[in-house]
Amino acid sequence: MAKDGPAAGKDQKKTAASNQTVQWWKLPTLEELGQEYQEEQKGKVKKNKAQEIDPWTVEAATDEHGQSLAFDYEAISREWATKLIDQPLLDRFEALTGKRPHMWLRRGLFFSHRDLDRILDCYERGDDFFLYTGRGPSSDSMHIGHTISFEFTKWLQDVFDVPLVVMLTDDEKALFKEKLTFEEVMEFARQNAKDIISFGFDVKKTFIYSDLKYIPYNGGHMMLNAWEFSKLVNFNQVRGAFGFNGSTSTGRIFFPSLQCVAAFATSYPHIWGDDPDSDFRSKKTAAIPCLIPCGVDQDPYFRLVRENAGRMKNKSPKPALLHAKFFSALQGPGGKMSASIPNSAIFMSDTMNQIKKKINSYAFSGGQETKELQQELGGNPDVDVSYQYITYFDDDDEKIAKIADDYRKGKLLTGELKAICIKLLQEYVKRFQDNRAKVTDDVMKSFMTPRKLEWKGNPNPKKPESKQKVADRTKQAGSAGAEKS
Amino acid sequence: MAKDGPAAGKDQKKTAASNQTVQWWKLPTLEELGQEYQEEQKGKVKKNKAQEIDPWTVEAATDEHGQSLAFDYEAISREWATKLIDQPLLDRFEALTGKRPHMWLRRGLFFSHRDLDRILDCYERGDDFFLYTGRGPSSDSMHIGHTISFEFTKWLQDVFDVPLVVMLTDDEKALFKEKLTFEEVMEFARQNAKDIISFGFDVKKTFIYSDLKYIPYNGGHMMLNAWEFSKLVNFNQVRGAFGFNGSTSTGRIFFPSLQCVAAFATSYPHIWGDDPDSDFRSKKTAAIPCLIPCGVDQDPYFRLVRENAGRMKNKSPKPALLHAKFFSALQGPGGKMSASIPNSAIFMSDTMNQIKKKINSYAFSGGQETKELQQELGGNPDVDVSYQYITYFDDDDEKIAKIADDYRKGKLLTGELKAICIKLLQEYVKRFQDNRAKVTDDVMKSFMTPRKLEWKGNPNPKKPESKQKVADRTKQAGSAGAEKS
Repeated sequence: MAKDGPAAGKDQKKTAASNQTVQWWKLPTLEELGQEYQEEQKGKVKKNKAQEIDPWTVEAATDEHGQSLAFDYEAISREWATKLIDQPLLDRFEALTGKRPHMWLRRGLFFSHRDLDRILDCYERGDDFFLYTGRGPSSDSMHIGHTISFEFTKWLQDVFDVPLVVMLTDDEKALFKEKLTFEEVMEFARQNAKDIISFGFDVKKTFIYSDLKYIPYNGGHMMLNAWEFSKLVNFNQVRGAFGFNGSTSTGRIFFPSLQCVAAFATSYPHIWGDDPDSDFRSKKTAAIPCLIPCGVDQDPYFRLVRENAGRMKNKSPKPALLHAKFFSALQGPGGKMSASIPNSAIFMSDTMNQIKKKINSYAFSGGQETKELQQELGGNPDVDVSYQYITYFDDDDEKIAKIADDYRKGKLLTGELKAICIKLLQEYVKRFQDNRAKVTDDVMKSFMTPRKLEWKGNPNPKKPESKQKVADRTKQAGSAGAEKS
Repeated sequence: MAKDGPAAGKDQKKTAASNQTVQWWKLPTLEELGQEYQEEQKGKVKKNKAQEIDPWTVEAATDEHGQSLAFDYEAISREWATKLIDQPLLDRFEALTGKRPHMWLRRGLFFSHRDLDRILDCYERGDDFFLYTGRGPSSDSMHIGHTISFEFTKWLQDVFDVPLVVMLTDDEKALFKEKLTFEEVMEFARQNAKDIISFGFDVKKTFIYSDLKYIPYNGGHMMLNAWEFSKLVNFNQVRGAFGFNGSTSTGRIFFPSLQCVAAFATSYPHIWGDDPDSDFRSKKTAAIPCLIPCGVDQDPYFRLVRENAGRMKNKSPKPALLHAKFFSALQGPGGKMSASIPNSAIFMSDTMNQIKKKINSYAFSGGQETKELQQELGGNPDVDVSYQYITYFDDDDEKIAKIADDYRKGKLLTGELKAICIKLLQEYVKRFQDNRAKVTDDVMKSFMTPRKLEWKGNPNPKKPESKQKVADRTKQAGSAGAEKS
């Protein structure tokens, strides 16, 4: 919807916002989805230069003037055959867990999934599953966009009470960034681990690892998985999935197998009490399902693992996925926060003053150019980056609706909107920084040591009746019937 | 030279052997090499279907009737730009080490090299270097052809008194043999390790490892080397070196990097007392040269490492190589002993009686069809497999010359020649089997545990003069000159 927004016409005179309160994060119902899908297919996307998204390229589509358009997430979902997250799914989530879905689910920052319903089945039965997320440590600090999946995964871990593995793909970053050395990325991984720990994960049920420090020291079973997986996947397949060619380094060609098998529980024998030195990976452990919250750009990896999980010697279920949108750059839709463009992003190491300055100077505004015009015409929250950030960091739906409404009506000025945003971001970053200061090397080591984890899962599982029970009941019913007759 | 031999004309009436005693293992002088090279270039090879040799394909050339010809080792050497081992090199070897070159060097079973002269320079100065050889554990037992590089490397280790690493590429075997599982090859690797230990290696200076059990448990630095190397080598390069294509599995595409970096001393920090847990590989250790005795079919791996060793962050010297010919099948030249063709090979697990039976039944003979014809016309040792084996297992040059001479003159009958061969092979295999029986699991573990090794190297190194000494001497000479003038 933001396609007729800022990036497409930065210099255009802004139109007055309608009086109607549009919640741009409103989730589609199943019926609406059908309509929207049909509308999209009428060539709307094809008119423009297509967006390009894979784990190493995230580029929005451009219009005929070469200006960036907003990412078209429904098009991604359609192209890759994922499912959009809908209200019925969230209703079931709430009914099962007794927890209101996270605002990022309600407001569509996590917009798409694969097999989340199966994970809910699993939770309902009280069966084990685990969470897996990750980060590519390309620098020693993270921006606010990087933190989304961790903040969200921490929440998921609290709700589900299950083990979590966090993969730091330092090997990948050194392989895919020409200038980064393997020594540099190992240090980045340690700094990133400390950042991640700051989100409050429970050490009893969380294992964080860097590829370069886990796999060649305790990764016997993970390496076996990677070799076995890489035997199933040939060059043509990764060429298609990742856009590789003859000039692609052999390390890059192999790496996807590693990231893929991180979704197999057997890659972490310690967690489940299996013997990591054994030649044999556990069949029982292989069957434990996995849920991966990640940026949607990571989906190609997991399509590959979903295609091949059932071909492994010890079959694993297809991992389930929860896809996040890209966290918008300060400059607005069609951009993604980037660590290499400092003014595109709020960094978790920014001072309170820097945050204030960045929002005031760079956050793209949907407001009018003067106070008077704003009061007369109102602003457009749909394209306003500060407003968008507010929706990501304030859980109060009513408050958000009122902010949007006031902004549209011109009751709220741009400066005031920005001030609300600044306060929320400062709180978020401050909380992080306070926690980060407490993460010592020892704390980091405790998270990064391969070990058995402890978790409880669903406290009230609805165990499926055993075959014996079903048979007994049938028999009883039969006897009762016999007595009647 | 064996091209007009058995494979080319099994049914031809054999011609009488000349009276001249031809030692077919005679090493070419530098002058002769020049001539032979010229003769070869006169299209001799091009008339036939070319031989095909890489780590996974070893096929002799065929003539116009499709019959296998002997391998043309000089053509391999020329095509791959290796150096043939010549008498001057062996003379220097003997002068430096005080040891007569092994019969397999004198008789050309190890026929070619790369930079052996540099290793001799190293030895002369008393500088460290190490030996690296390996085996792909495709089954739980080895045939006599597999043992050549181990028997020879044991001799080299005794002569040079340097560390040795033996890589068991179980990962490779599972990747390249469709039906082998990773669990199977790990067990093969252990059995093969016991076989290898039976050749009498000194545990103080020998580290044997299986890829699947070393790299993901103690291989932090080896994995760093492999990733860094694989970043330097792209798909086009391995496609050329190993004949890969789009259908090649991504595991196979990556594997060469692992086998390549086994030639870098930093892959074994334990051996040199470096810290294996450090992020940093030692620059000093990276500079330690490596000598690799191996089958000539393995050369493509090491060409790749020679091309890229100097591009690593910590530069390593190009590894030196000693290339072995293929150990002839019982059926004669153009064949290679193969574990999957039982009657092509003598197995190290064969009974004394099986050895006798195989030689008597299958060893291709250069003798005449009857005792009378043999006595009249004589036999041809140049094409006789039993005779060839004798030259590989009896160190006594005079005795060998007499056997050849007697055979040519018809004084020695085929049965008698075979009996000599049988006795030598039985002794070789018996010694192995006796040693093998003593290799317990504990002995195996002691060889396979990453640890610091102990060695002495050259007891009488000729240290190069320090710059200071040279300067002092020049000064002295200068003063002396001044006094004279």
